[in-house]
Amino acid sequence: MYNKATSLVHHFLSELILDGDHVVDATCGNGYDTIELLKLVGAQGRVDGFDIQKQAIETTRERLSIQGKVDNVFLHHASHSTMKDILPAGSSLKSVVFNLGYLPGSDKSITTNPEDSLSAHSAALDLTMPGGVIFTTVYTGHEGGKAEADRLLEWARALDSKQYSAARHQWLNPRKDAPFLLIVQRRS
Amino acid sequence: MYNKATSLVHHFLSELILDGDHVVDATCGNGYDTIELLKLVGAQGRVDGFDIQKQAIETTRERLSIQGKVDNVFLHHASHSTMKDILPAGSSLKSVVFNLGYLPGSDKSITTNPEDSLSAHSAALDLTMPGGVIFTTVYTGHEGGKAEADRLLEWARALDSKQYSAARHQWLNPRKDAPFLLIVQRRS
Repeated sequence: MYNKATSLVHHFLSELILDGDHVVDATCGNGYDTIELLKLVGAQGRVDGFDIQKQAIETTRERLSIQGKVDNVFLHHASHSTMKDILPAGSSLKSVVFNLGYLPGSDKSITTNPEDSLSAHSAALDLTMPGGVIFTTVYTGHEGGKAEADRLLEWARALDSKQYSAARHQWLNPRKDAPFLLIVQRRS
Repeated sequence: MYNKATSLVHHFLSELILDGDHVVDATCGNGYDTIELLKLVGAQGRVDGFDIQKQAIETTRERLSIQGKVDNVFLHHASHSTMKDILPAGSSLKSVVFNLGYLPGSDKSITTNPEDSLSAHSAALDLTMPGGVIFTTVYTGHEGGKAEADRLLEWARALDSKQYSAARHQWLNPRKDAPFLLIVQRRS
C-alpha cells in the first residue's frame, strides 16, 4: 500500500469517504478513480468528473456504463479550473482527486498546465468541507512537469497552517520520475 | 490523521500489525509507542523496547505497569544498534518504530546520533519480515538533527527498490522544524 501513489490514494480515500459524500475526480483520465469514487460514495452520494480531453470523458463513460446504475455521476468535458461554475451552488466536497500530467496511453503533448492546475486547486480548496482532503498525484517526467510541481508545492507551503494541513509523500528509491503525492486537508 | 507524524504512524501501525506479531519500539522515550504497540500485538504477540536512557526505560515500565498483564513486553536499557544481539535468534519483525532526536521533557543534549541510528536501521531491515515496515519520525530541529536526517535519507535512497520501498512523508506548511516521517517496507 505504501509503494505506489495510486494504491496509497485509494487507501486514504477508502478511509475518508463515507456513504452519501460528494466528491470530484478533477482528471478523469481512464476513469479508474471515477469508478473507485463512485463505489465509495454509494447510491446516496455524488461524483463529478472533469477532463479537458473528449477521449477521457468517453472512456470514463464507457467504463461507468458497465457498472450499471450510475445516475449519481456527472461527467464534464471541461477544465477542472471551471469546477466552481459547473458544480451545483453550495457544493461541499469531501474530496477532490487530481492526477496531473498527460492521459496515459494518449498524446503525451497534451498535459495539464500550471496555471489551470493552480486555479483548480484554489477552487477545490474553497469547495472542500472541514476535514475534506485534496489528493494530487504529481508526475514530473514530462515537459513542464517540474515547473507545475514547483508551483503547486509553493502554493501548498503558503497555506495557512491554522486552516489547512499540507504534506508531500515522496518515494525515495523508485524508478526514474516516479510521481509524488500532495495531500491538503481542511482542518475540522 | 494526516496532520501529525504521530497520528499518521499510529494509524499506519493499526492497519499493519496483527494479533501475535513481534514488533520493536527502538526508542521507548516516554512509552507511548510501546503501549500502542502492545495493544496491537495482543496477548499472543511480543514487543521489545530499547532506549539508551534509564529514565526512558523507567517511565515506560511505569506506564506499562498500569496496563496490567505485560509479560510479553521486554524493555532493554541499551542502544537500538544492538538489537540484533539482544532479540531472540530468528526474530522476524512486523514493524520497528523509531523516534529520533532527544527525549521529550528531558536533557536536550542527549540525542540519538547518526552512526547508531544508521546501524540500527540496517539491523532493523535485516530483522524485518516480508511486508514488514520501519517507521521513523525524524526531528531536525536539534543540533546534529539535520546531519542525522541527511544520512538516513541517503541510506533510504540507496535501498534496492526490488526488495524495499522507501518513502518520505513531509509536512509542507507546518510549524518550524516539524519532523518528517520515513517509511521503509520490505516487499512481500
